[in-house]
Parts: sequence; structure tokens; C-alpha cells
Amino acid sequence: MAKVNRDYQKLPGSYLFSTIGKKVREYEAANPGKRVIRLGIGDVTQPLSPEIIKALHSAVDEMGDAKTFKGYAPDLGYEFLRKVISEKDYKARSCEIGPDEIFISDGAKCDCGNIQEIFSRDNVVAVCDPVYPVYVDSNVMAGRTGEYDPEKQRFNGVVYMPCTAETDFVPKLPEEVPDLIYLCFPNNPTGAVINKERLQEWVDYANMNGSVILYDSAYEAYISEPGIPHSIYECKGAENCSIEFRSFSKTAGFTGLRLGYTVVPRALKLEGVALHDLWARRHGTKYNGAPYIVQRAGEAVYSEKGRQEIEKQIGFYMENARLIYEGLKEAGYQVSGGVNAPYIWLRTPDDMTSWEFFDLLLNKANVVGTPGSGFGPGGEHYFRLTAFGNRENTVEAVERIKRI
Amino acid sequence: MAKVNRDYQKLPGSYLFSTIGKKVREYEAANPGKRVIRLGIGDVTQPLSPEIIKALHSAVDEMGDAKTFKGYAPDLGYEFLRKVISEKDYKARSCEIGPDEIFISDGAKCDCGNIQEIFSRDNVVAVCDPVYPVYVDSNVMAGRTGEYDPEKQRFNGVVYMPCTAETDFVPKLPEEVPDLIYLCFPNNPTGAVINKERLQEWVDYANMNGSVILYDSAYEAYISEPGIPHSIYECKGAENCSIEFRSFSKTAGFTGLRLGYTVVPRALKLEGVALHDLWARRHGTKYNGAPYIVQRAGEAVYSEKGRQEIEKQIGFYMENARLIYEGLKEAGYQVSGGVNAPYIWLRTPDDMTSWEFFDLLLNKANVVGTPGSGFGPGGEHYFRLTAFGNRENTVEAVERIKRI
Repeated sequence: MAKVNRDYQKLPGSYLFSTIGKKVREYEAANPGKRVIRLGIGDVTQPLSPEIIKALHSAVDEMGDAKTFKGYAPDLGYEFLRKVISEKDYKARSCEIGPDEIFISDGAKCDCGNIQEIFSRDNVVAVCDPVYPVYVDSNVMAGRTGEYDPEKQRFNGVVYMPCTAETDFVPKLPEEVPDLIYLCFPNNPTGAVINKERLQEWVDYANMNGSVILYDSAYEAYISEPGIPHSIYECKGAENCSIEFRSFSKTAGFTGLRLGYTVVPRALKLEGVALHDLWARRHGTKYNGAPYIVQRAGEAVYSEKGRQEIEKQIGFYMENARLIYEGLKEAGYQVSGGVNAPYIWLRTPDDMTSWEFFDLLLNKANVVGTPGSGFGPGGEHYFRLTAFGNRENTVEAVERIKRI
Repeated sequence: MAKVNRDYQKLPGSYLFSTIGKKVREYEAANPGKRVIRLGIGDVTQPLSPEIIKALHSAVDEMGDAKTFKGYAPDLGYEFLRKVISEKDYKARSCEIGPDEIFISDGAKCDCGNIQEIFSRDNVVAVCDPVYPVYVDSNVMAGRTGEYDPEKQRFNGVVYMPCTAETDFVPKLPEEVPDLIYLCFPNNPTGAVINKERLQEWVDYANMNGSVILYDSAYEAYISEPGIPHSIYECKGAENCSIEFRSFSKTAGFTGLRLGYTVVPRALKLEGVALHDLWARRHGTKYNGAPYIVQRAGEAVYSEKGRQEIEKQIGFYMENARLIYEGLKEAGYQVSGGVNAPYIWLRTPDDMTSWEFFDLLLNKANVVGTPGSGFGPGGEHYFRLTAFGNRENTVEAVERIKRI
């Protein structure tokens, strides 16, 4: 008789964003006159830029003509895209990542969720607390953790690395050495960044201990200050211990278009086995490539005109971030993030819990954000706002919060 | 120290289509004057039809306008697509599959590869022999099988169900009851179909034994004869034991556009756990939806004009199939498939091995096909040709084979 994967049942029932959605729907139903502003989920609102739209139309036309029609894409992704990524995202920053070390995919979420498959099930996983839930949940589903402890709000068998204000929301090197270390900078949800020196310490730690760093760099395009690495491969020796995830979602507004990539350097080996070969095998067996038209859209992001448009778009969101950051600071809130990331992380006032503050904001200001505790117990008493709204809503949301 | 997933290393090294590619490249390099015709890999060649192109352009325009821009898609896929699928693919055939039992994805290959995750690792898997490699390989990678036995060319711990000419390439109900049963009709690689009575036997067998049928129906659009079920849900009780995979790749030429869907009926439960919930959890955690523009293209497939165009395209490929089938039969080959499927399955002459015949065809006719043994030992002495070429190449390939 067939049986289900029991590991799935270790996951606590309700998911953060569905709980938020339910609360908002209930509020709106009870208060039909109120206009609720959403700065919760990290979804973009600006349309795709003209160069990208142009590239999409042109690729669609190719698909309608037998002479230029494209069927299955190459396993790793089209070379035109992998080449330009290698040049502009890596070689331009003196990172020696070649086109054949880049795997095109339909987004960083999928890759972050699937990457754990190529590792042994008895590997110990370390995550930040608070954390983007996919890193943990995908390992729970694979049976790489123990049971969920409702009191600690943590899974047994996972190394949680607290990210607190005291260390600028960057974790300390764990004493218990994990096998797989998930790091995300600029960070979701805290908006914190790590400087090159501190990231180098992580790389050295991983190389010394034989750990692998799974580095989520989905928000690197939002880095505005110097000295902050855009890629982990800016650190010496990172190619021997690190896999990096990148996304076009926040860089170029591709949340509804779906494109990302993962870098697995050829030098990265465990017990003589190249992780590149394993990930290529996974790609070849369980995936069939990102759409040609979307890969052409990705290419347009790197054209001169495309790059200019993208920078303008990011500038727009970062002005939102500044408005939220400055506005809340002015109103007396303790805020961080928002300078090199599209997320603003704020301390709840009067020691309120994250959900109490959520309810307050929803009821008194009609503004929706994300309770920090939804990202783990380390996020308790914190709250996340995103810079992805339009200007009018963002400005009004800040005004409303100030008036509480 | 991090360790790799050792189960990956159970997979034999060289992959069928890369071996074919290598042989063809070597032949072409040594014989620069020869024009090689490829009827091997199952990739389409006809461009996307005008209605689909129109839908793509229109959706691209929506993505370029803030008022109509779409970010993250709903978890299950857009309702406009799930609704039309429910109506036209299911309710029109008296299958009671609702929109919320349909999960939109970027293709059947991904879903076929990922579905095993929601089942226990100690479940026993049954596959046809010959078989589409993804079913087996994804279970090997998950540790659901034993080692590969090079002599038997089979993995230990897997139930292989021989599909031979004696039973029209439909497997017999296995004596050793498996937990998960992969079936694919119309079949890849044999082009065989199963009639409703025999499929009902499988459904009854699964319901009696508590097995789950994973039914790959990616080629259903090629069924031309009556009495052949397009969906397993045409059988009584299938909603209690079956998951079905569908693809737009071969139906509408989406191999490079990527769209498919999986049906998990709400009635399908194991030990009280709804598989629908588990697949929804997997979708929500490790996937982020198919692109909006591609879902709109999928919708266009169901419009009246779209449907007419698609039928013409399928008719075109099926005329290729007929030409290959009739031509080879005339030349004295023992052929099957090709009537309700785009694949022609032929017995090699003079008891040649599949690879010997591959070499013969490449060298004497400059035609590339797929050795049946590449799909498992049950495919030895067989050979697959596909109907997805253009007319000119197909006609010439048949002429060349006849002349050998």
C-alpha cells in the first residue's frame, strides 16, 4: 500500500502569507469603506521596462516562424544568456565564473528549494533566525531535520544562527559546525548586508570545516554602498565551498516572468565528487529549461539601454525604501535595512509582539506588513515593510503609520 | 563535513541522448558532405500557431503597463486557465475534475520528476520496460531503489513490467504489488495505447491494493481512434487512486515555452492524508508558478480558433507518422505505434541490436533515430522514430531507409 512522505507533516499547518491574507480579507469585509495598503509580500509593482518588452515581442515573433522557432532549450540554458551573465555579473567584478558554471532556471526560489537534494540526507543544516522559510521547509520535507518543537518554534536537528541588532543582523560563526550553511545577503527579511571582510570569514570557516555555503544573492542589485560584496565569489576561495543563487525577480521585475540562475563552480567538490555534475544531473532529469522568450528577456536586462531602465526602476524602489526608513525613524521607530535592500526591518514599539503590531497597523493605519516572527522566533518584536509598492501608496502608508 | 547524495551515483554515467549526439557529431565531422536527418529526440519543429502568438503578444503588452502588470502568479496557476482545462479536458469527457484539482506547472517532465517526493521513501515503484527514463531516475535520486545491476540493466528494488509485442506493448498487472505505478499512454517510446477496459483493470487493481497510479497522458492529443481513453479519470474510481500529468509540449508545440499541469483529485487520500494538500505544499514551497504570458498562451490553445490551429498541427505530425509507418511496413519492417501517437516503434531487422541498427541507419541512410534499448532492456531489438520532423525530411528519411 502506498504511503505518504511523513516528513511533510512535520511542517506546521498555516503558512505566514495565507494567515496574513485571511486577516486582511476579514478586515476588508468588516470595513468596506477602508482602503488597505499592502507593503507585506515582496512582490514588485512596476511594469517590465521597454527594452524587456521589446525583447519579449521579438522572441515571440521568432516562435511563430518555422525558421526561427525554438523547441527544448539547452540543459544549462542558452549560451547567449550564460555568457552575458558570466561577463557582466562576474568577470566585471573579477570573479572567475565561466558560462558553463551557470545554470539558468525559472527562479531562485525553485533552486533554493531543490539544491538540498544533491546533498546527503544526514547533513546538518544551518540557517539564520529570522530566515526565508524555503531554506528550512525544503530540508524538512527531505527528512533532513527532526520534529518541530512548538515551544521553541524551531525544528530539532537544525542549527539556528540568531541575527540580532547587536551584530547588525549578521550571524556569528556557529560553534557546532554545520554541513550546509544558508546565507542570504542583502537579507530577506532584515534588509541587512554583510561586508567583504565578514563574508570572507564565512568562506574561510567553510573551507576549513568542509562545509558548503548556499548563498542567496537575489537582492544584490539593491546594494548602493561600496564595500558590500554583490557575489560571494568576490571572496578568496569561495569557488571551493559556495553555491550562489541569483534572481531576475527583484532585479528587473520578473516575479511574474520567472527567471533566475544558480552558480555551481567546477572547483566545488566533496569527497572528489563535483557538485556541478550532480546539479547538472538534477537539471537534466527533473527540469526542462526556462522558456526561450524569457531567456531573451533576461538577456535584454544586460543591454546598455536595458541596464539603464533597470537602474531607474531599482532607484524608484529605493526611493520608496528611503521614504519608509526616514519616515519611520522620524516617527521614533528603531529601523534598519532599506539602504542596500528593498526591505525595512523595524522594532515594534512598546515591546509589542510582531502579530500585535500587525493587528495595530491593519486596524489603525490600514497598512499591511509582515510580522517578523513569521520568519522565525528571532524575528519576534520585529516587522518587515517592503519598498515594492507604488509611490502614492508608500507615501500614504508612511503618513498613516506616523499618525497612529 | 558536507557529503553528497550518494543515490545520485547509482545512475549509470552516459545519458542516451548525449551518446546519440556524440555519435552524430562524429559522423558529421568525418562526412562533411552528408545531410543527416534527425528523427530521434521528441522535439517539435512546427512554429507556434497564430492564435498562440497573438495571445503571447497581448500578454507581453499587459506586462509592460502598470495597470495590467502581473507579479507572482497564484500558487495553483491562474484560474482562467484551470477553469478552461477543467471544462474542456475533463468535464467535456464526463470526468468530474474541478479547477482546484488542477496544478499548473512549467511542464510534465518536472511534475513527473517531482511527484515522487510526496510519497514515502520505502514505497516500491513499478515502471514499464521500455520506459521514459525520468520515472526511474527521479526515484533513484530519491533513494527509493537499490543499486543498478549492469547485467540486468535494471535497478534492484524496482518492479519492471515488460511491454512486449505479445501484449500490444501494454504491461500485465504485476504479481508483486507495487505502491506507485507509472503508466504512460499513448506511450513513449512505443506509441502504444491502452483501451478503456484494460485501463479500468489497472484502476481496479490500484484501488484494491491501495496503490497509486501516476498516469502520464502527455500525448493524449494524438489519439485518433475511438475507445481509447484520453484521461485516466474516464475510468470509474480513478479519482481515488490516480494522479494525471498533462503537457502542452506536444499538444501545441510548447517544448520551448514550457507549460503543463498535474491533476491531484481531492478524493485521493492515503491513510487519511490528502495528496492534494501535499502537492500544494510542494508547489508552494519549491515552485513559483508558470509565467503569466505562458499561461495566457495556454488559454489560447482552448479557444475555438486556437483549437482548430492545433488540430491542424497535430494532423500534420500524424501525417508524418502515417508516412513513416506505411513506408517502413512496405519496406518489410515490423512496425507499431504511429496511429494514436507521434512515435513509431519498429523491430530491428535480422535480430540486430538497437545500437547496431542505429549505426546502420546513421551510416547508410544518414538518418538518426533512438535505440529502443536506451529506454530499458525491454526495448532491445527495437528502434524509435518520431513524427515531429518537417514533411520534406520525413519523406526523404523514409525513402533513404527503404533504399538500405
